[in-house]
Amino acid sequence: MQENIHPIHHRLLSRAEREARLGQRSVVVWMTGLSGSGKSTLAAALERRLFDQGYCAQVLDGDNIRSGLNANLGFSEQDRRENIRRIAEVAKLFLNSGLIVICSFISPLRSMRQMARQIIGPEDFLEIFVRAPVEVCEERDVKGLYAKARRGEIKQFTGIDAPYEEPQNPFCTLDTASLSVDEAVELLLQRLKKRL
Amino acid sequence: MQENIHPIHHRLLSRAEREARLGQRSVVVWMTGLSGSGKSTLAAALERRLFDQGYCAQVLDGDNIRSGLNANLGFSEQDRRENIRRIAEVAKLFLNSGLIVICSFISPLRSMRQMARQIIGPEDFLEIFVRAPVEVCEERDVKGLYAKARRGEIKQFTGIDAPYEEPQNPFCTLDTASLSVDEAVELLLQRLKKRL
Repeated sequence: MQENIHPIHHRLLSRAEREARLGQRSVVVWMTGLSGSGKSTLAAALERRLFDQGYCAQVLDGDNIRSGLNANLGFSEQDRRENIRRIAEVAKLFLNSGLIVICSFISPLRSMRQMARQIIGPEDFLEIFVRAPVEVCEERDVKGLYAKARRGEIKQFTGIDAPYEEPQNPFCTLDTASLSVDEAVELLLQRLKKRL
Repeated sequence: MQENIHPIHHRLLSRAEREARLGQRSVVVWMTGLSGSGKSTLAAALERRLFDQGYCAQVLDGDNIRSGLNANLGFSEQDRRENIRRIAEVAKLFLNSGLIVICSFISPLRSMRQMARQIIGPEDFLEIFVRAPVEVCEERDVKGLYAKARRGEIKQFTGIDAPYEEPQNPFCTLDTASLSVDEAVELLLQRLKKRL
């Protein structure tokens, strides 16, 4: 084994080989928007639609990230940045595996999303603005978080007492106050198809 | 969109659906052993062999983890534990995507590997002991790390001045002092096939 112990880089599987095997081009679809804007609903629906059409996609969201990899992070600005950094690094690993990665995170600051874009690579980072007025999100309030934030039980809640910086030039904007889930996913799929 | 904003769990893609699509069962192949024992060489060779046989596999190793996700970790025992914890969490995400994950990390302590096993789930964690006497690893010393450790330039180097705890009941042991790369991978493949 002596002569073969050094890393044999030409043997490493390339992303292109993996993409060819899966019959798709990998990309990161990064959904940003307020809590309650519909990111995770759209992410799950997109994953399902892509799968039904023969693609391999994976959602990364609070459910599978905050409960595991990032369980040791809080919600200070420093921890929120580290949260996004780790997510972007994981997304990059999946990207290299040839998968379509659908990230669903509030990621409220432009600087956070810029960091993610840099880590992932600008050409593979598609920013999707899941847009709904904060009043609409607050009315939905599925998790009761807005009510808690209004009562002061949650501090630094995005849209209430912490800022959300809207994307300036997103790949796609989905207005979930006016579009149904099916309509929004269809719109996104149309845009994505040229990239997959 | 109002009525659909809550997480629709039955719509989430299951691991079983992904495995069926890829035509394989996902699993984590966890290679442990000394620096220079041949882990990464075997991991890369296994990934290639699996790919050539139609499987989808992904190596996680120092090259793609320490340079990205875990770039903010050092080599204290605390950081080494966090290193392994994050890797296990990422492996679990890939597992859920239906991929065969090949982890290549020294992971010197039983408690570290036990943590990884717990995170990943015992039934999906296959411990592979990549075994070579420390003298053989030191003679190979591809990266010059043993020489540095002997000169005291690296502290807490596994096998020199930090312990390596051998697996007690590994899924498979590969003796890289006596087996060629091809022989070792063939042996491992034989054992793995029943699980994929």
